[in-house]
Amino acid sequence: MLIVLHHWATEKDVESINKTILKLGLKPMAIPGAERTAIGVIGNQGWVDDAPFRLLKAVMETIHVTKPYKLVSRDFHPADTVVTLGKKVRTGGRSPFLVIAGPCAIEGRDQIFRTAEFLVKQGIQVLRAGAFKPRTSPHSFQGMREEGIRLLDEVRKEFGMLVVTEVMSPEHLGMIAEHVDILQIGARNMQNFDLLNEAGRSKRPVILKRGLSATVEEWLASAEYILLGGNPNVVLCERGIRTFETATRNTSDLAIIPLVKSLSHLPVIFDPSHATGRRDLVPPMALASIVAGAHGVMLEVHPEPERALSDGPQSLHFRELEKLNGRIIKLADFVKKSL
Amino acid sequence: MLIVLHHWATEKDVESINKTILKLGLKPMAIPGAERTAIGVIGNQGWVDDAPFRLLKAVMETIHVTKPYKLVSRDFHPADTVVTLGKKVRTGGRSPFLVIAGPCAIEGRDQIFRTAEFLVKQGIQVLRAGAFKPRTSPHSFQGMREEGIRLLDEVRKEFGMLVVTEVMSPEHLGMIAEHVDILQIGARNMQNFDLLNEAGRSKRPVILKRGLSATVEEWLASAEYILLGGNPNVVLCERGIRTFETATRNTSDLAIIPLVKSLSHLPVIFDPSHATGRRDLVPPMALASIVAGAHGVMLEVHPEPERALSDGPQSLHFRELEKLNGRIIKLADFVKKSL
Amino acid sequence: MLIVLHHWATEKDVESINKTILKLGLKPMAIPGAERTAIGVIGNQGWVDDAPFRLLKAVMETIHVTKPYKLVSRDFHPADTVVTLGKKVRTGGRSPFLVIAGPCAIEGRDQIFRTAEFLVKQGIQVLRAGAFKPRTSPHSFQGMREEGIRLLDEVRKEFGMLVVTEVMSPEHLGMIAEHVDILQIGARNMQNFDLLNEAGRSKRPVILKRGLSATVEEWLASAEYILLGGNPNVVLCERGIRTFETATRNTSDLAIIPLVKSLSHLPVIFDPSHATGRRDLVPPMALASIVAGAHGVMLEVHPEPERALSDGPQSLHFRELEKLNGRIIKLADFVKKSL
Amino acid sequence: MLIVLHHWATEKDVESINKTILKLGLKPMAIPGAERTAIGVIGNQGWVDDAPFRLLKAVMETIHVTKPYKLVSRDFHPADTVVTLGKKVRTGGRSPFLVIAGPCAIEGRDQIFRTAEFLVKQGIQVLRAGAFKPRTSPHSFQGMREEGIRLLDEVRKEFGMLVVTEVMSPEHLGMIAEHVDILQIGARNMQNFDLLNEAGRSKRPVILKRGLSATVEEWLASAEYILLGGNPNVVLCERGIRTFETATRNTSDLAIIPLVKSLSHLPVIFDPSHATGRRDLVPPMALASIVAGAHGVMLEVHPEPERALSDGPQSLHFRELEKLNGRIIKLADFVKKSL
Repeated sequence: MLIVLHHWATEKDVESINKTILKLGLKPMAIPGAERTAIGVIGNQGWVDDAPFRLLKAVMETIHVTKPYKLVSRDFHPADTVVTLGKKVRTGGRSPFLVIAGPCAIEGRDQIFRTAEFLVKQGIQVLRAGAFKPRTSPHSFQGMREEGIRLLDEVRKEFGMLVVTEVMSPEHLGMIAEHVDILQIGARNMQNFDLLNEAGRSKRPVILKRGLSATVEEWLASAEYILLGGNPNVVLCERGIRTFETATRNTSDLAIIPLVKSLSHLPVIFDPSHATGRRDLVPPMALASIVAGAHGVMLEVHPEPERALSDGPQSLHFRELEKLNGRIIKLADFVKKSL
Repeated sequence: MLIVLHHWATEKDVESINKTILKLGLKPMAIPGAERTAIGVIGNQGWVDDAPFRLLKAVMETIHVTKPYKLVSRDFHPADTVVTLGKKVRTGGRSPFLVIAGPCAIEGRDQIFRTAEFLVKQGIQVLRAGAFKPRTSPHSFQGMREEGIRLLDEVRKEFGMLVVTEVMSPEHLGMIAEHVDILQIGARNMQNFDLLNEAGRSKRPVILKRGLSATVEEWLASAEYILLGGNPNVVLCERGIRTFETATRNTSDLAIIPLVKSLSHLPVIFDPSHATGRRDLVPPMALASIVAGAHGVMLEVHPEPERALSDGPQSLHFRELEKLNGRIIKLADFVKKSL
Repeated sequence: MLIVLHHWATEKDVESINKTILKLGLKPMAIPGAERTAIGVIGNQGWVDDAPFRLLKAVMETIHVTKPYKLVSRDFHPADTVVTLGKKVRTGGRSPFLVIAGPCAIEGRDQIFRTAEFLVKQGIQVLRAGAFKPRTSPHSFQGMREEGIRLLDEVRKEFGMLVVTEVMSPEHLGMIAEHVDILQIGARNMQNFDLLNEAGRSKRPVILKRGLSATVEEWLASAEYILLGGNPNVVLCERGIRTFETATRNTSDLAIIPLVKSLSHLPVIFDPSHATGRRDLVPPMALASIVAGAHGVMLEVHPEPERALSDGPQSLHFRELEKLNGRIIKLADFVKKSL
Repeated sequence: MLIVLHHWATEKDVESINKTILKLGLKPMAIPGAERTAIGVIGNQGWVDDAPFRLLKAVMETIHVTKPYKLVSRDFHPADTVVTLGKKVRTGGRSPFLVIAGPCAIEGRDQIFRTAEFLVKQGIQVLRAGAFKPRTSPHSFQGMREEGIRLLDEVRKEFGMLVVTEVMSPEHLGMIAEHVDILQIGARNMQNFDLLNEAGRSKRPVILKRGLSATVEEWLASAEYILLGGNPNVVLCERGIRTFETATRNTSDLAIIPLVKSLSHLPVIFDPSHATGRRDLVPPMALASIVAGAHGVMLEVHPEPERALSDGPQSLHFRELEKLNGRIIKLADFVKKSL
């Protein structure tokens, strides 16, 4: 940690800060500058709280050098993590590009079975669908809940697909984990720490979406909760961030895909449906994410988007997904072999 | 709802949209414009989902006129709600300006008792302190948890104070509600809908903080969950939003205080400690919020901020709180009588 | 335009609004809703100012249907605009993917000649380099100014390259336009309207960068200034927007590339150097933009980035640009033929 | 400056960085940490460019300790600057609270004279009105331009008022400065550096608005341009920033008022009209800014807001300004004497 002093700080201020550092069992190291002095804190074995320093009058600011995460960092685990989904699907590292698809919400047996049947035909092995739905307004459709989970379990058995669904509450996690292959923690719950802790105790892989206004550092620190709890199978998912621009539902922050890959060993996928909120922007952004280095995409598709109970405008029609999936396969192959 | 068409939309497109509207049991009403046509949807008794329209090719955008909340709206409840805390403290409407204060986290018996004793002397009747702490990093102090709640209960009995603490998980809510007077739902949990539903089932008043990147509309829709669950005692708390500016911890959005008061009948308070993140900015912003129309403030104070386990830099020293409290009383009095 | 009334608005309020609409030579059309009434304004030939309505007590909000731009809109000019740079380079529509490259700032004859020589070898025909530099601090290097322009003119003659440079002020525009092929209007000047007007009077093509916090609508309205002034040769350039995320210099908003292409007929290029601010993120994002539909990229390159007087950390080394250029050619070709 | 290395950096990396530092005539100072090493750079007399370091592979990040401004900093000029407007109005330091008011745009002789007459009656000595108007769309009213300036000059002579108006272009600055008392540089031009330089050569006081997405540091660096040019009479004006929240036109960032006062000696005023965009929010926010420490406010007022050619919805009626002005006087007096 670095403690930067105001330009008027006196020798006495410096001494007093040095004493505080020594009391904490650490060592101070002065760094005199042109306009002001800074003091380095050395000897710590991990994160040092800057609280005792930040409020001293002579201190202008404190700067952390150590990051708030460790297990997820590539510094401490240089090799790519490859997460196994179910028994045979893998993501991360040099695994094949992963396509996850499905409707925003499970709306009934017919809808989800038609979708599963269609996806299997496309060679897509992982279906996502929401049973417990986080909705801004309590007056909106809240999902089929337990019954939806039951339907997902039927899909698994009937079609041999892997299924992923969102968990909103720690108390439901155990029940849901019994019936699905992969758990999703949504953007709104990225800092629901009880839920992260519970996910850490699970053996199921977890797709952790980035929060609407979460920094990369906070996102990785949330993943750290799950790894620290004992579950190393985390897949990060960028899904757009909230900015001043309202022409798209969120702002697709594709540049953090290569960035996160340099900071962490975990796989990173992209959700162009929530990131853009517009069906017509999903194909170009899904394809762009391949080139940016994503390990996979998660796409919303619906047999009849115009009747979808949620997120219809960003859901692809079957024929659109079919076309996009073909282009994904071609482009991923080209990138691997020729780029 | 208003459906705006592309300028090239044909008569046939309009007819097809009209049919869809009629199928939903509603009525279409054409609004021809200079450059493009719009279609009003009328006859609805509440929120209409725009999904069936937004993805039609001829539709440029859909515009909602009805809001995603109702019970919290002043349209449907014109008189100010006054929330009673404990047996005798009231907030909202013309109630006296409310000061809530305490440390970010309970760190031990001595710390919390010293704080309570000090606050009582200042005439401050509500103590806030965190037992369950949401922390970005799993490596940071996570709060005293159950033991912290027990200490809060002791404070209540010993000092006759009301206490408020954050609830992070629906499963803890019942236990916590037995021991404290007021529940707080934090910024990171503003859209933890299971928690909101559970708070709706409680009889305890709830302080609902605005999310880091929540719009006013989303915040009010979250309050709607609690009211719809049967609990009308919600106090809204602005605590700063996340923006590009990093010179302060968050950006204090004071203008939404008078705005929310025009949209909703619920009381609104302000948390200058989290909004600014800097002890020196807390007094001017606490005072400014009185003039902006806030019903109260929530302040962080600590017997020894330099030793605080969290948020030390934004915590006031006792002597600073004493001074600020005196100014708050004087200013609130002046505003009431002379402004 | 749509005027939405408060739910308590009376018949009298509606009548009074209708009268105001009629006075303006327009027609009102009532749209009764479940909770509130709206009034459509019809008969306008273009943009109607909502000022006379927005402040009436009974009016909750006004909603514009007509956009603040027209000439740049695809609605009024469905075919892609192809801009000719110099005599033979074209961009927009189905033109080949355009690569513009060069140092952030001209620092001397040797630096700019070495760069031009290198770019010509790579088959890159357009060099960009700043002579007048907008710098946050007056204590930073401000560019070689007139002498830089002179050097650019030498480069043109010596290497037969096209050159592009930023214009910061209307009074310099004429002089600069005499010596360079393409003018750039930077992010900070996107709403420098006198400069836009002057660019409208020029015959030189203009690269118009998106402002740091400009909406797509504002950006297109700025382009409208130039077209309205008589210059149809505008190339839009996305260069990242300012958000809460500081892990990258700006947030690359790639999704607006396909979005802008659907709204406007103008070419759109991408600047990954400013968008990311990090040399290691430039190649993946440059390549991703091809797939997202960009018509070209603008890249920073420097013979010795570690000695660059500005933006060194985001400048590519020659060998990196060479490698990236090869990948761009391969990917652009693949996208055109096989995707 | 502090250079932070990756945890895997070797002794050789450190040596190579040290050499670069020495070459620049500065001194390296190693700061070994628990997880990584940092190197302090000492001996500089001012701002050091981090470019030569940021792109070295072993460097994780560089951290500036020195600020990009100096003349505007309180570090180097501890006493408050008091700016004299015209001959007798002063702002800054302990000067009386300043009220500037007027219409967004000059629309004609009658409008501006009626406004001036009204303001004089209220004891308001400074009138602001726009002659050159920056408008998003070229299809909107662009201001009366030169004729507007002439009308302002008439107002000065007729009513003995001081007048302030926006300058959009360096070439108009000289002409405008001959006819008005105070120049305004608007939010969109905060980084129009040629304009800042020209303002630095003027003898007129300058009101410098904060840019829509400008950090406090950038804003102060823009003021530095003017001071460095030789004009010390700068008044900073907060006018709201652009964030994700659209319920208000901008987000009022009041907390930066006390913050800027701690960083700089320059006066700071607040513009609640642009910050909120809503007439009903102007009074509470204008009053709140007094308590937050602003030296003054700038208010939009119009004889007939419903007919205003721009910004009508945020303009006060005469009777509203009269009422607000009375409250401002009372509150400013109370704050000075009793708070």
